[in-house]
Amino acid sequence: MKQKTKRADKASGNFNQKKIIKNGNKVSKMGSESIVEIKSDFKVCIAQINSSLGDFKGNAFKIVEIIKQAKLQNARLVVFPECALFGYHPFDLLERADLVNEQLKYLKWISQKIPSGISALIGHISINKKSNGRPYHNSSALVSKNKIEKVFHKELLPTGDVFDEGRFIQPGSINNNIFKIDKYNILLTICEDIWAWPDSSGRSIYENNPIQKLKNLKFDLIINQSASPFFKDKIKLRKSVASQTAKSLNAPVLYCNMVGAQDEIIYDGGSFVVLPNGETIMQSSQFQEDINYFKLKQRLGGIRPIVQKKAEVLRRALVLGIKDFCFKTGISKVHLGLSGGIDSAVVVSLAVDALGPKNVQAIYLPSQFSSNLSQKLASQLCENLGIKLIEFPIEEIFEKMNSGLQKYFKVEGFGLTQENIQARIRGTLLMAFSNFSHSMLLNTSNKSEFAAGYSTLYGDMCGGLCPIGDLTKKEVYLLADHYNSEWEVIPQGLIDRAPSAELRPNQKDTDSLPEYDVLDRAVENLVENSKTARSNVEKWLIGAIQRSEFKRWQAPPILKISKHSFGRGRRFPIANRSKTRQ
Amino acid sequence: MKQKTKRADKASGNFNQKKIIKNGNKVSKMGSESIVEIKSDFKVCIAQINSSLGDFKGNAFKIVEIIKQAKLQNARLVVFPECALFGYHPFDLLERADLVNEQLKYLKWISQKIPSGISALIGHISINKKSNGRPYHNSSALVSKNKIEKVFHKELLPTGDVFDEGRFIQPGSINNNIFKIDKYNILLTICEDIWAWPDSSGRSIYENNPIQKLKNLKFDLIINQSASPFFKDKIKLRKSVASQTAKSLNAPVLYCNMVGAQDEIIYDGGSFVVLPNGETIMQSSQFQEDINYFKLKQRLGGIRPIVQKKAEVLRRALVLGIKDFCFKTGISKVHLGLSGGIDSAVVVSLAVDALGPKNVQAIYLPSQFSSNLSQKLASQLCENLGIKLIEFPIEEIFEKMNSGLQKYFKVEGFGLTQENIQARIRGTLLMAFSNFSHSMLLNTSNKSEFAAGYSTLYGDMCGGLCPIGDLTKKEVYLLADHYNSEWEVIPQGLIDRAPSAELRPNQKDTDSLPEYDVLDRAVENLVENSKTARSNVEKWLIGAIQRSEFKRWQAPPILKISKHSFGRGRRFPIANRSKTRQ
Repeated sequence: MKQKTKRADKASGNFNQKKIIKNGNKVSKMGSESIVEIKSDFKVCIAQINSSLGDFKGNAFKIVEIIKQAKLQNARLVVFPECALFGYHPFDLLERADLVNEQLKYLKWISQKIPSGISALIGHISINKKSNGRPYHNSSALVSKNKIEKVFHKELLPTGDVFDEGRFIQPGSINNNIFKIDKYNILLTICEDIWAWPDSSGRSIYENNPIQKLKNLKFDLIINQSASPFFKDKIKLRKSVASQTAKSLNAPVLYCNMVGAQDEIIYDGGSFVVLPNGETIMQSSQFQEDINYFKLKQRLGGIRPIVQKKAEVLRRALVLGIKDFCFKTGISKVHLGLSGGIDSAVVVSLAVDALGPKNVQAIYLPSQFSSNLSQKLASQLCENLGIKLIEFPIEEIFEKMNSGLQKYFKVEGFGLTQENIQARIRGTLLMAFSNFSHSMLLNTSNKSEFAAGYSTLYGDMCGGLCPIGDLTKKEVYLLADHYNSEWEVIPQGLIDRAPSAELRPNQKDTDSLPEYDVLDRAVENLVENSKTARSNVEKWLIGAIQRSEFKRWQAPPILKISKHSFGRGRRFPIANRSKTRQ
Repeated sequence: MKQKTKRADKASGNFNQKKIIKNGNKVSKMGSESIVEIKSDFKVCIAQINSSLGDFKGNAFKIVEIIKQAKLQNARLVVFPECALFGYHPFDLLERADLVNEQLKYLKWISQKIPSGISALIGHISINKKSNGRPYHNSSALVSKNKIEKVFHKELLPTGDVFDEGRFIQPGSINNNIFKIDKYNILLTICEDIWAWPDSSGRSIYENNPIQKLKNLKFDLIINQSASPFFKDKIKLRKSVASQTAKSLNAPVLYCNMVGAQDEIIYDGGSFVVLPNGETIMQSSQFQEDINYFKLKQRLGGIRPIVQKKAEVLRRALVLGIKDFCFKTGISKVHLGLSGGIDSAVVVSLAVDALGPKNVQAIYLPSQFSSNLSQKLASQLCENLGIKLIEFPIEEIFEKMNSGLQKYFKVEGFGLTQENIQARIRGTLLMAFSNFSHSMLLNTSNKSEFAAGYSTLYGDMCGGLCPIGDLTKKEVYLLADHYNSEWEVIPQGLIDRAPSAELRPNQKDTDSLPEYDVLDRAVENLVENSKTARSNVEKWLIGAIQRSEFKRWQAPPILKISKHSFGRGRRFPIANRSKTRQ
């Protein structure tokens, strides 16, 4: 990967100048009005768009507009992401035949609306016309003016983690996905089709690698249309499989990825073109829509900067996740409970980033166990972020409820029952705020707590979306420090204090949990990397995970930023009598 | 299907007498000590057991005991259900390689413990030894004394509804699943392998039917090991696919099904042997473990009665679901909120059926909007069932919380906010009861409410298990009437009153919802049968379903009794902009 050293001397969106000078062409900007064209070259537009699942009309309008724009730029072909017209991942929306049919009408509509002299590859769901097999294909249509020239199908279906394509999708064969435009021989693949390469242990989860069936054929270009979920360092994996494909078939691979978020899944874009020697010669932005161009003969494409700093990558991913969840569900305002602790501080910072301060409401709900410092820190944080803070003490409600418990349930003393009551009163009040203000509650749980079961179901587990539920505690601190990298957004005192749920006097998280750095490592090993428990903490944790499965079954959607998140991509049973070796 | 007319003249567990007399043999009872054996026949034991997921030791002990017992009965082969050793459905437990390896040790242990002269087919998870493909197979081992003779793999993997086998399971080919015991030629299939027959519309979701590949071969017996989830009338479907298989290969099909429940899924047993002419000649019980025998040459097997009455079938399924969820998670006590309405009345009746009255606690949590009648009916119901009732009025807590809302949130008046507050106070108190009494809260929502979103998240949606969440309101009434079929268990006044959430004065469900008979039909069409919305109510409902997807994402596990339940088998996105044609 030479990209990193190169990146420094390139401005955003500019040509790959070294290449151009070597080829003896005039320097120009791609995508601008003043391009000096080599008319004979084959120019491809990479339309990295943010499709909305089920919004066929909106997606179709966007697709047509981009094709028109690409035509003005003398592009010959426009490549859209996987399922750009339907939106991705449809999951069981594919139960609804009316939706697939409606989408297909828009595919035809697109072909009628686009100019002639340009073609587009449009990811969509097509109907399996045979009487055997799953009812649909995950397809791409080669569309020209008034014509759907050809429809190609995805061969490899992902079934791991968040994917469920085997439910409704019948695989095709990429042997049928070869076509010619002008004199160029092109192979079309969809997402997983280029992922059958063995991993570092020599293992592939696919019986056959469809790319290797084709290695005696000659291609000018391999296109891959993807909707590839983001996780940390995913971009390296993508470049690796694309490079192997490019090398194997001795042709450049154009990888066009979806951008945007859909429930728990963040699509980060970052489309690229890679040569058989592994060199990246076109690079689109990450975490935003981008229209980029690539010239096949000259091997030239626009190069956008890619953020390398881990905390900033996480921030952009999560901000996109929050923003798109709200936009695509029609929510404009969010609120959350601020505790004066690190988790809610980071979530509120992300929310303000995503929706702006006027759309974020903070609520501080102290009990008799909340310290004055918590109030001060929560209040300072809101001042720094420019958001309003409502303070709603819950002590009286807690006392009333607790005296009811004593009177009717005959519960005496103070224990877990009384701790959870506080968390659930807060959940109830925060949900009441949703009801009258039409605002969505953001959940503030992190992955380390989720793993240990250190959370109250229907209490601090309430919320419509959980933005940091796939971050270990360490990563939450990383984001907090990142927010403070230019000035103190999150009060330093809040970052420095020992984590506490403040549900009983002088409570500390470490009363119930291992130190977070130890816990975090165990969470990464067991949950993210599915390793076998070895250390004592890991053996304890595997039991804690198992015992708290019932809570996570009812958790809100969790934005996924790791290889393996809690959430719908992790499907563990509740009733499970496997020994946990405690 | 001749079974129904036959059933009347047979006692439970008795021989198929007509058959015996026709064959000129002495009448005897199979499975009893006094069998008159035709030594030359090939006797198979059908071990319909209830495996516990992950409890390899417990499952292995049970398996060995049954093989020993079958040996005493001169059986030559014992057939266990699919995945009998691992338990089913493992879902992502297969991420944990240590569990698979531990299970394989118990497979070897079984072979060491069983007597000689008998073999067993033991469903388990085996390792895919090739370097390509998913890491495991869904397998069956032919085990004899000190020997694992052969391992067979499942070919067709189900991916619809609750199934997720494509995640970790590599398909095999049933062409490799042919073996001989004594002189008999046997084909082994696993569950889905015999389900590729086209449906009534002529469509199969599988590209190829593996049974048809083998139709030129001659078999004496086809065995199918299953873990087939219950739903209404599923037994007819099973007999239909088994009969088609028997006819196609001209040999009897022995279908051995799992019994028991695993989270949301109920396995109902009901194992059978069917002949090529469609006749059932062995029938095991439904909803309970059963050891049954079948003689191949004489075509003779034990016939147990099968319950036909829909309400009783539902009752047994749900009772098994509750009982097994509790047993397999280690819970011995449950409690629930009684409202004086039909849903909680049916759930408490089921709970008492499953766990006995001393393990069920009812709690009545009236607000100022609860009628005296509700109290009277709840109290009468508990008296009838012999369970304790705690009354915990929530009015004071509600008032305290509402005055807080006014003071700190500036909410005036009475609306949805105040309605939901009541439901959430109840949820909080019921969860508090869990905390100090180590009892599990049962949820009382039904499918019609879930569909319409007529429920309060973190309020009446609380609970560790939802027993009637896949029942339409009509089916809830059906069960209530069924409980009253001999005497009035559920007070008739409770059944007769109009459904109300009693969250505001004189509230009726029909203030917000269509009449339940209309709503129920729409729920069946849209959710259970995935049909396109046609009527006005259906068009309204499809929008209501879409808008309430976020609530059901956080619902408790729902016992599945229909073709398509809310719960993990239905995977709909939250952010979904498809038009709902309202």
